[in-house]
Amino acid sequence: MTESRRLLADETPFPEDLDQRLREQFTFLVEVDQLKTVLRQSPLAATDRRENDAEHSWHLAMMVVLLAEHSDEPIDVSHTVQLVLIHDLIEIYAGDTPLYDQAAGEDQRERETRAADELFALLPEDQAPRVRALWDEFEERRTPEARFAKAMDRLQPLLLNWMARGGTWRTPGVTADDVRKRKAVIGEASERLWDAGRLLIDEGEARGWSRDD
Amino acid sequence: MTESRRLLADETPFPEDLDQRLREQFTFLVEVDQLKTVLRQSPLAATDRRENDAEHSWHLAMMVVLLAEHSDEPIDVSHTVQLVLIHDLIEIYAGDTPLYDQAAGEDQRERETRAADELFALLPEDQAPRVRALWDEFEERRTPEARFAKAMDRLQPLLLNWMARGGTWRTPGVTADDVRKRKAVIGEASERLWDAGRLLIDEGEARGWSRDD
Repeated sequence: MTESRRLLADETPFPEDLDQRLREQFTFLVEVDQLKTVLRQSPLAATDRRENDAEHSWHLAMMVVLLAEHSDEPIDVSHTVQLVLIHDLIEIYAGDTPLYDQAAGEDQRERETRAADELFALLPEDQAPRVRALWDEFEERRTPEARFAKAMDRLQPLLLNWMARGGTWRTPGVTADDVRKRKAVIGEASERLWDAGRLLIDEGEARGWSRDD
Repeated sequence: MTESRRLLADETPFPEDLDQRLREQFTFLVEVDQLKTVLRQSPLAATDRRENDAEHSWHLAMMVVLLAEHSDEPIDVSHTVQLVLIHDLIEIYAGDTPLYDQAAGEDQRERETRAADELFALLPEDQAPRVRALWDEFEERRTPEARFAKAMDRLQPLLLNWMARGGTWRTPGVTADDVRKRKAVIGEASERLWDAGRLLIDEGEARGWSRDD
């Protein structure tokens, strides 16, 4: 049960004169400030610390805008950007599940669905299902936009790992083949970007930045 | 002169087999990782530290998606999202200029234009002017989309200051009237959001979170 969760906005309640719709929207927008505190495994290229989900989501959105031309199928850029902006919001309540952590992966779907139920319900009644539908679409990966969004979600840490000369490729027990398997979804969206991704993984393996056994 | 600037991507050069267009796009995408290290004055609501530009840009994009309905003029949401995603990129080279820092504001335009010239030139030749045009549009504030993007840029820290019970409203020498003046551009995009913004500023002043003289 999570009915008693204290919201961030409860700590400094908005003035009573604020109308109900804006109150719900502002409450949600303040609540998602927490995305800035959910840490990922990826090391930043620009400085020596791990990335958080808000930074990651911004970076994916930039990638969609700049790399959409490489999608194998035509995509609606605006819609794809919205998918990446919201795709990690549920981690505010469900936490980040590292790509190479199999145990955490097992109940991931259930934890994340509960988080989505709770989080999106903060929005106005007509808006909540629209935002929830974006998250469902991203997760189901049945549209060209969702496939491209997912590809960005896998390509971005690959660039950061390249810059870090290994990064999470060095996770104990992970081999270069594991990396190739987890990253292969890039190829479902863009042959050209997956060729580039594979080139980085292969070259990283050749340089000893990941394990080849 | 900045011709000799070392790029982040120079620290771990991409493999020679990577084609030229992707090399330029990846180089830019790695370079802008630095947006995650440009600190703003605003305190986060979720934890006790200042916000960085990448987190801020993500937050504005979320706000555009959720609050676009309050724009006084019809706006293209996709285009507005792109404006906020790129609006602070030039701060990677030019630094953040605090809203209430008049001295830094004086040569801001010149510093930022030089930064834009340099940064966007990293992109492929056909893509650079398109992204540069987004930044120019945001700065000039002549389109409904640019006005709404700017309104989000002013409303977001207002929400964070509210949550912090003052935040940068407490900057020495700044009064509640200064805050109202700097935030009034919200009203150029949305009467409803400016009513809400003013309500928060007025209530904050009444509670002693900003100075009334």
